[in-house]
Amino acid sequence: MTSSPAPVDIAQSQMPTPVDSKTFRNGMARLAAGVNIVTSVGNDGWCGFTASAVCSVTDEPPTLLVCMKKTAQSYHAIQSSRVLCVNTVAGLHEDLSMRFSGAGGAKDMGMRFSGADWTTLITGAPSLADATVSFDCLVVRNEEIGTHVVFFCEVVAIREGENVEGLVYFGRKFHRVTQPA
Amino acid sequence: MTSSPAPVDIAQSQMPTPVDSKTFRNGMARLAAGVNIVTSVGNDGWCGFTASAVCSVTDEPPTLLVCMKKTAQSYHAIQSSRVLCVNTVAGLHEDLSMRFSGAGGAKDMGMRFSGADWTTLITGAPSLADATVSFDCLVVRNEEIGTHVVFFCEVVAIREGENVEGLVYFGRKFHRVTQPA
Repeated sequence: MTSSPAPVDIAQSQMPTPVDSKTFRNGMARLAAGVNIVTSVGNDGWCGFTASAVCSVTDEPPTLLVCMKKTAQSYHAIQSSRVLCVNTVAGLHEDLSMRFSGAGGAKDMGMRFSGADWTTLITGAPSLADATVSFDCLVVRNEEIGTHVVFFCEVVAIREGENVEGLVYFGRKFHRVTQPA
Repeated sequence: MTSSPAPVDIAQSQMPTPVDSKTFRNGMARLAAGVNIVTSVGNDGWCGFTASAVCSVTDEPPTLLVCMKKTAQSYHAIQSSRVLCVNTVAGLHEDLSMRFSGAGGAKDMGMRFSGADWTTLITGAPSLADATVSFDCLVVRNEEIGTHVVFFCEVVAIREGENVEGLVYFGRKFHRVTQPA
């Protein structure tokens, strides 16, 4: 092999080992993220889960990504229907977000969806009526990474809500961010 | 073709078209995201850019992703060195974050790095001394999506800073979120 610059030497020859999971999770608690309820519709009806691992990829074509655990309840519905809706939530949705994270034993999907207003846009995946914004999507590609899958999604409809407020998860707590009028 | 459930019919037969780029960007402005300065080291030395499209993927093995435009200045350095450091910034780094976004003509990398304290952890990519948290990473996989690439990165070192404060981008403005002691 020919000689190569220092960073490549370090990466390839010493092969540093990954940090442990706890250190990683503690570090990640310091990276603020918006809170979303990601929904889909499968053979058993509507399903959904709370996700902070959602981000914009490109606007040509308009694409976002959603990362989820392969053992999550909604995984098979998304895999088979190839549709999902990312509902970016506002401060008033703290309790709803907790419910969609499975807190309080809310594994039952009917229980998760109750007490909020839902409609559909184009794909049939549920759209939260008072979300800050909803992105209705077709899943165009999956990439599996360890325990998780990343769904790359083309956005086919967007609805902006009346709530111009963001709900952020940071330091293992919810925080509200408000946009001045 | 055999009949299939409604959402699949909709997705496959009517093939809805993506929303336009402007609608997408306006919608994405409503999805809050933490602010990071992503750095690397290439043949021309240190480089870096401001990124909000960073998220956790899995803790087995500890992996995050970074999405960047293929025309960005730091793209080739990351592609060749296969190392990067995600520096999650705090409120005091608003100006620094603007500089690393190229604002004010700061295309020169020396100008971007000046006026802040930098060290290195394991890979040699620059770590911001007073970041909220720094994730030092090896790039283990790329996925190209349109104009952008998603780098999947294994985290080999983490340094938590003294700043327990997050800087969030929402509604095209910076917001600070603070963790009570």
